[in-house]
Amino acid sequence: MRNLKLVLAYDGTDYCGWQVQPRSLSIQGELASAIGRLTGENVLPQGSGRTDAGVHALGQVASFAIESLIPAANLVLALNHILPPSIRVLEATEVPPDFHARKSARAKTYRYRIYRGPVCPPFLARYVWHYPYPLHFEVLEAAACLIEGEHDFTSFAAVDPEKQVCEGGARDKSNVRRIFSSRWRREGDEFEYEVCGNGFLHHMVRNLVGTYALIGKGTLSSGDMSKILAAADRSAAGRTAPASGLYLVTVDYETSVSPAPPENNNRL
Amino acid sequence: MRNLKLVLAYDGTDYCGWQVQPRSLSIQGELASAIGRLTGENVLPQGSGRTDAGVHALGQVASFAIESLIPAANLVLALNHILPPSIRVLEATEVPPDFHARKSARAKTYRYRIYRGPVCPPFLARYVWHYPYPLHFEVLEAAACLIEGEHDFTSFAAVDPEKQVCEGGARDKSNVRRIFSSRWRREGDEFEYEVCGNGFLHHMVRNLVGTYALIGKGTLSSGDMSKILAAADRSAAGRTAPASGLYLVTVDYETSVSPAPPENNNRL
Repeated sequence: MRNLKLVLAYDGTDYCGWQVQPRSLSIQGELASAIGRLTGENVLPQGSGRTDAGVHALGQVASFAIESLIPAANLVLALNHILPPSIRVLEATEVPPDFHARKSARAKTYRYRIYRGPVCPPFLARYVWHYPYPLHFEVLEAAACLIEGEHDFTSFAAVDPEKQVCEGGARDKSNVRRIFSSRWRREGDEFEYEVCGNGFLHHMVRNLVGTYALIGKGTLSSGDMSKILAAADRSAAGRTAPASGLYLVTVDYETSVSPAPPENNNRL
Repeated sequence: MRNLKLVLAYDGTDYCGWQVQPRSLSIQGELASAIGRLTGENVLPQGSGRTDAGVHALGQVASFAIESLIPAANLVLALNHILPPSIRVLEATEVPPDFHARKSARAKTYRYRIYRGPVCPPFLARYVWHYPYPLHFEVLEAAACLIEGEHDFTSFAAVDPEKQVCEGGARDKSNVRRIFSSRWRREGDEFEYEVCGNGFLHHMVRNLVGTYALIGKGTLSSGDMSKILAAADRSAAGRTAPASGLYLVTVDYETSVSPAPPENNNRL
């Protein structure tokens, strides 16, 4: 058996999310079906973590074991030929047998795009959160780093049974995660949030962004971020920001983590 | 009765085109239904011309007569509130009673985007023609201006009954049109074609691009463009390029035509 690692980009708008579900289009299901058509083997690729319905990826990672001898490089062309244009394989590499896309992950980077102009261009509607209301960038900038370091993120975890199994940290029953970097930046008509950590709870990035929106418009102060963390109570934080703005940018497997993802991923 | 003019942008991917059709989603139908919900009046807005299924617009123009006294500026917000995010009203203005979006049009500008990288990013798949094969830019550049001026464009007109009624030129039964400018440009991984003329036959821009693709890859020479025009025979030209790359950029109603559209429309 060979162990293969794929790097994937996808437009999540028309899918129920990463995970296979009955009677729904999923990224995992489309990928499994393409691998099956290509090799005749029945495999379920494991992702670095689930992404929810409507969430996108610039660099999701999946791994699976296979008997087929097809060279890894050919797999990129062959799978892209079968997959819908909304899912692309960017890289395929053969990896050691103990590599597992979720269990071996050491860090992940997510990006969240907010479009601030008065009318959201129809070509961006699937790819941003349209939020045309006042948001003070300097306040967001100041509040960003307050979540860096190791914290209990219970206030930002979805209150649902999924939260315990969604992302593989060292201890799946703890809500403690380490954030390596958390930054807001401005680009044209957009505010972009980028966060890198050793793991994320279900809805965590979208709940952080929903809370930052309250801070940016002045409903909360930037210092409230620390109080919300300390409360360890979902109701202390803001609402869940829409899925359309969220991108899984990179998954890191090295011991040395590079918090800033390559710029050429920016507009993929 | 008041006469109103709207400027619209839309993502045409999920529509059967501009024109109302039974049991299909159309831009015209969505707009008519939004105007109806807002005003209670049953109007069918007239477009500057039809766009086909999958074709986009950055500045389509529509006009319609209405009794409602709603201020034109409020119409933008109100219609955008009702319309799906894939259709946006950019401007609404009251115009003289004799203004008609199609009959008053003096020039139109179309753009066509070709993505040339080996893997098409999933976020561009709806908005470009993915053509990862060799294309010589300098040859396209040289061939572009050969269609400028007044020509019979029969070689580039769809061979179907629609061609006679699709676009309102001075004489609807002639295939003669005047092209004010025709240019190729390079931007990153894309080649973009932009053409401005007093009218376009059905499929004309996509047939021009399909023919330019044959010239760019060397199957035809740039000089063949003049021979294809002279042939006045659809079979002399190349295939119809996919709808996904095509954008109606602007419609001009002034006597003085500005062939270069404003740059801020570029990424709308």
